[in-house]
Amino acid sequence: MSADYTLLLQTIRQWVSVSEREEPILSDLFERRYVPANDFFLREGEVCRYVGFVVEGLLRYYVLDDGIEHTYDFSPERNFTCNYESFLTQTPSTRFIQAIEDTTLLIISYDNLQQLYARLGEGQKFGRLVAEELFVGMLQKLTSFYRETAEERYDTFMRSFPQLQERVPQYVIASYVGIKPQSLSRIRAQRAGKQY
Amino acid sequence: MSADYTLLLQTIRQWVSVSEREEPILSDLFERRYVPANDFFLREGEVCRYVGFVVEGLLRYYVLDDGIEHTYDFSPERNFTCNYESFLTQTPSTRFIQAIEDTTLLIISYDNLQQLYARLGEGQKFGRLVAEELFVGMLQKLTSFYRETAEERYDTFMRSFPQLQERVPQYVIASYVGIKPQSLSRIRAQRAGKQY
Repeated sequence: MSADYTLLLQTIRQWVSVSEREEPILSDLFERRYVPANDFFLREGEVCRYVGFVVEGLLRYYVLDDGIEHTYDFSPERNFTCNYESFLTQTPSTRFIQAIEDTTLLIISYDNLQQLYARLGEGQKFGRLVAEELFVGMLQKLTSFYRETAEERYDTFMRSFPQLQERVPQYVIASYVGIKPQSLSRIRAQRAGKQY
Repeated sequence: MSADYTLLLQTIRQWVSVSEREEPILSDLFERRYVPANDFFLREGEVCRYVGFVVEGLLRYYVLDDGIEHTYDFSPERNFTCNYESFLTQTPSTRFIQAIEDTTLLIISYDNLQQLYARLGEGQKFGRLVAEELFVGMLQKLTSFYRETAEERYDTFMRSFPQLQERVPQYVIASYVGIKPQSLSRIRAQRAGKQY
């Protein structure tokens, strides 16, 4: 089993147990995909046909509203990525998922994911736990997105993604906070003394 | 098996199969609860410790924002009810779930629900499918709540709950639409010609 699949297996095993005998199911059902920096894993208007597992790299999620990008989430390595709403309903996405860095993924199609749920002893449990975590995470993201001030959003970014501060371009951080890039330095200066 | 449990079983079987041998598991794990009209299934600040299945009656969900009630959902008979976010994380609820009519429920505790997932052959699958549907439904509700005009919200109510128009008090419909009760008749008149 290659290092990519070992990483995927380790991650799934944080949720449920996978026996040694079940390990080959993963390489049966996932395939490798490479997305160069600035290219898209998913565009607005496309149906999200795959769930991706980020082996290496970094993706961001954003919506385009009157020509303005609003970044609302990131998926670094060892995380799953997809527009879960578009994926579950197999309807066109209203969001973009874009690579910020050259990104290598293991991807699984909708049909193969149903197979994964059925073939792994704890596959359905894995699906339940992921769906539950995504439900809670999405509510927290939406509450932050709609209700927080720019200063609070900046704090949310620093607290949620402490390891990404050096990897995310300034204009993307600004689009997460909901301000113009030139306003970011003001908030940065103001927050400089704060511990995260 | 009483009529209440037969209704619950029918509803679960719309999602997954439950064998005859498994039927007693339901009466082991669920218990009966009665909530008179205007009383609460869940209050803001309380942890949601139960998922309820509505056998008879009607509940509404609302948030209180600066003293104003914003109704955002309803659970009539044959539907499950809970604040899923509070339930999953076992943290205090930011919402209210109130009975609009005298309501009879079968309720299941957090621990018993984990048992249900484990003891039913398709229990984990049931949990996954419910979590997935709640995820999609919650996104649609939030998008409607934050983005629609009063007219669109009224249409959403009529389309989403056609069978509840006579059962929901006017002030609750107004709090769903996001307007004062006295403004509701204007929208009603305007929409009167529209087919739902």
